[in-house]
Amino acid sequence: MMHFCSACGAGISYRIPHGDDRERAVCDACNTVHYVNPRIIVGCLPEYEGHLLLCLRSIEPRKGFWTLPAGFMENGETTEQGAARETWEEARARVADLALYRVYDVPYINQVYMFYRCTLVDGTHGAGPESLDTRLFAPEEIPWDELAFPSVYRALASYLHDREEGDAFPVQVETILRRRDAGG
Amino acid sequence: MMHFCSACGAGISYRIPHGDDRERAVCDACNTVHYVNPRIIVGCLPEYEGHLLLCLRSIEPRKGFWTLPAGFMENGETTEQGAARETWEEARARVADLALYRVYDVPYINQVYMFYRCTLVDGTHGAGPESLDTRLFAPEEIPWDELAFPSVYRALASYLHDREEGDAFPVQVETILRRRDAGG
Repeated sequence: MMHFCSACGAGISYRIPHGDDRERAVCDACNTVHYVNPRIIVGCLPEYEGHLLLCLRSIEPRKGFWTLPAGFMENGETTEQGAARETWEEARARVADLALYRVYDVPYINQVYMFYRCTLVDGTHGAGPESLDTRLFAPEEIPWDELAFPSVYRALASYLHDREEGDAFPVQVETILRRRDAGG
Repeated sequence: MMHFCSACGAGISYRIPHGDDRERAVCDACNTVHYVNPRIIVGCLPEYEGHLLLCLRSIEPRKGFWTLPAGFMENGETTEQGAARETWEEARARVADLALYRVYDVPYINQVYMFYRCTLVDGTHGAGPESLDTRLFAPEEIPWDELAFPSVYRALASYLHDREEGDAFPVQVETILRRRDAGG
């Protein structure tokens, strides 16, 4: 919740600006409208010799659970660059041949996930600061009951299904509606 | 540029927070880190009886140029819902059968466009507050020299090309790098 105008420091009111149709944070002094919009989480499904790379989270939320490398997209980068950057930061792995695979809308937390499938360049990986461990899992080794987020579960399940079907990997957009303990 | 903390009203410094690797707006008093991330623009390629629906912009930037209905995604909605909402707001048209078609990364303005192809429910349309006019164009009537943004030009050209090829409409992610007068 915003209390002060980041432009002039005066107090904020929540009201519907002229010509708008929803409540915004508006400055009482300089009238700046402070828009708040959904954020993008970019991530990878990194494959190497049939195995998939997961990271054991060292931070909350879901510390101690396995996740795909993913994080908030930064200004100045593309979604693909962001997905590769997160994979380096969290799993110390270089990736290639990135292709968009899944978009997950998660409206109850105002997030949009974009997962890219890709391959590890040389198979090396290691824990970055937000990971306790990284590991390449064969499909039958995936720790389904220890995954951090519904988006990770869905992306992995869809990917392995599509791979069995024969490498078509159609892009799909899905909505994650139900709030679970696991979060977004 | 942020000058004051929106949480407590104190002054802001730009510095690299502990454990981070890039400069952020950090509050000198309460230490809140104010992240700024790319924003999503959602839009539609609305088709009706082989024609495509465009809007003549009534506002800057690019007032008086033609555009696909599109705008900033709002909190609490999905990308598809946002694309349909924008089409109603700007072109007073109801759409169905939405399918993701193009993602355009525009890193120099920190935006990600997501265009959905779709059909008009009943063919009706009309100018919303941000439009001077709306019109259904046959492919040979598209005003290529009067389009508002490179993303609109690209989306229309790709869509018409794919339609000629026979309705496969593969999803693609592209980057718009070059700054032009037309903006993002």
